[in-house]
Amino acid sequence: MGEFGLIRHLTQGLESRNASTHKGVGDDAAVLSYPETDVLVTTDLLLEGVHFNLTYVPLKHLGYKSAIVNFSDIVAMGGTPRQITVSLGVSSRFTVEHLEQLYAGIRLACEDYGVDLVGGDTSASRQGLVISITCIGDVEKGQAILRSGAKETDLICVSGDLGAAYMGLQLLEREKAASAGQKDFQPDFSGKEYLVQRQLKPEARADIIKQLKEAGIKPTSMMDISDGLSSELMHICEESKCGCRVYEDRIPIDYQTALMAEELNMNLVTAALNGGEDYELLFTVPLTDHEKMEKMPGVKVIGYITKPELGAALVTRDGQEMTLKAQGWNSLA
Amino acid sequence: MGEFGLIRHLTQGLESRNASTHKGVGDDAAVLSYPETDVLVTTDLLLEGVHFNLTYVPLKHLGYKSAIVNFSDIVAMGGTPRQITVSLGVSSRFTVEHLEQLYAGIRLACEDYGVDLVGGDTSASRQGLVISITCIGDVEKGQAILRSGAKETDLICVSGDLGAAYMGLQLLEREKAASAGQKDFQPDFSGKEYLVQRQLKPEARADIIKQLKEAGIKPTSMMDISDGLSSELMHICEESKCGCRVYEDRIPIDYQTALMAEELNMNLVTAALNGGEDYELLFTVPLTDHEKMEKMPGVKVIGYITKPELGAALVTRDGQEMTLKAQGWNSLA
Repeated sequence: MGEFGLIRHLTQGLESRNASTHKGVGDDAAVLSYPETDVLVTTDLLLEGVHFNLTYVPLKHLGYKSAIVNFSDIVAMGGTPRQITVSLGVSSRFTVEHLEQLYAGIRLACEDYGVDLVGGDTSASRQGLVISITCIGDVEKGQAILRSGAKETDLICVSGDLGAAYMGLQLLEREKAASAGQKDFQPDFSGKEYLVQRQLKPEARADIIKQLKEAGIKPTSMMDISDGLSSELMHICEESKCGCRVYEDRIPIDYQTALMAEELNMNLVTAALNGGEDYELLFTVPLTDHEKMEKMPGVKVIGYITKPELGAALVTRDGQEMTLKAQGWNSLA
Repeated sequence: MGEFGLIRHLTQGLESRNASTHKGVGDDAAVLSYPETDVLVTTDLLLEGVHFNLTYVPLKHLGYKSAIVNFSDIVAMGGTPRQITVSLGVSSRFTVEHLEQLYAGIRLACEDYGVDLVGGDTSASRQGLVISITCIGDVEKGQAILRSGAKETDLICVSGDLGAAYMGLQLLEREKAASAGQKDFQPDFSGKEYLVQRQLKPEARADIIKQLKEAGIKPTSMMDISDGLSSELMHICEESKCGCRVYEDRIPIDYQTALMAEELNMNLVTAALNGGEDYELLFTVPLTDHEKMEKMPGVKVIGYITKPELGAALVTRDGQEMTLKAQGWNSLA
């Protein structure tokens, strides 16, 4: 049906959800309007064989996740995602039905988060699937939460739990290996559904931003945990010119993550510190918000910000200090 | 030096040129401010082996062109490009020096057009080089020039000349073929420098937008010519629900383009109609602006808009009408 026919087909029936969306798909550029807020822009490039493996990632999930990782970046600035543009590079083994599945996931994510799809193009790819998504969002003027605002004595907090998406990846990889050469292989995910879900269908924690606002808490710094807690803590320390102490026994970990680590004979804390793709929020709040934070559901205080001279360290269960290393989840694999 | 060190290295020393740029590279998202204008967003994905061939495209030129094609989309809305984000997928054969060259081209384009580089990331690619650029720009509120505003009797205009970039590509391909297996081969571009330049170092016609504004002309529709005049005319006709007549003898063609077509025994008009990557502007103006348009340098009136029933056609030198086909430059190659 040609490139333009294809894009029209994939984006048909889209309706604007946001007042800031003036003109979407179908011109040289999208036209938006942000008279009263600051504008946030983020972009992510996802490459087959590097960021995803189509052997065990359904295309609809991939579409959903591709959108979510961008929403998460906007949320991690304290903002609200409003629009996305989607560029695809597609090799000849993909059919229109494949692209429909991918777009179904993208459109579902847009629906769930109230985001408008305002631009799309597809081109041929000689290699695998290439997905490039740009997300535009807004935040109250001057209220974007940067990585650079953490101050000494601030409390370090994380939402949700960590390491599950990484364990989900290990599980998918294991089942893939087990399936090799076997016809009609059925992977066994029973009792581990949460891990698979965390890997295949992550969410952006817009609910936490809302909760913080309602509680009258303004984080001093924030980012999302895509490369692992350890690496992200080091970014905050570097950008904010500070050190930190986080407590091993305060890091939130789901029991399925713990069981899976045991089953795979992996170090649980390493997985929680360096396993990526959790898309939870890491943020700091003034010490005076301590009581409010302790009462807040789905959020945990895991440590505090120090003078820069003290460096970034994990305090283990037996009271030892271990310097944090930013190995990131890629190097774990 | 790791991904973050690399991005820091490639983007060091950047200074904001635009008041709308609040926070650039180094956080989850860029922070921008557009209180008084509409915001334009466009994105382009360029894949090695599909959109460019590193055998004959120097990396600095590729960087420049990658930025320009995005600027051109903003310009084609009547806007001014302000910020870009750059995502790269890079295979292991690329060194830091290669990326420096690519970024040198991107930074030069930003300098030439007063644009801020506000976001960048690189990741591994198992395939070739992948370049994804998003450009944000602004335009006076409600003044974006869409493809959908052309009206019957409007004049159809183009800037510059057409077909040269396509002929430049043919020339580069020919010299590449001639060089096969030869050591120290020196390609011969003498007398054809314009064609090579049009292919390797295109420009976005921001000067035409300025000129139109100064002359008090507001185009009723506009787009940039990236896929070929024929294809773009059909987009305008479709979006504006109209037909058109363009005159073969009015299509602006440089003499180098004409000579090269003769040398290659190619149909010149086909090349001018369907050869892509000229990045000139195609636009329509009210008939009442006829005199002003005829006086304007660097712009040519090539035809007029008709009722939709008449379809889109080229009037040949001998007065015949040929229905336009949107074959686009890819299918020419």
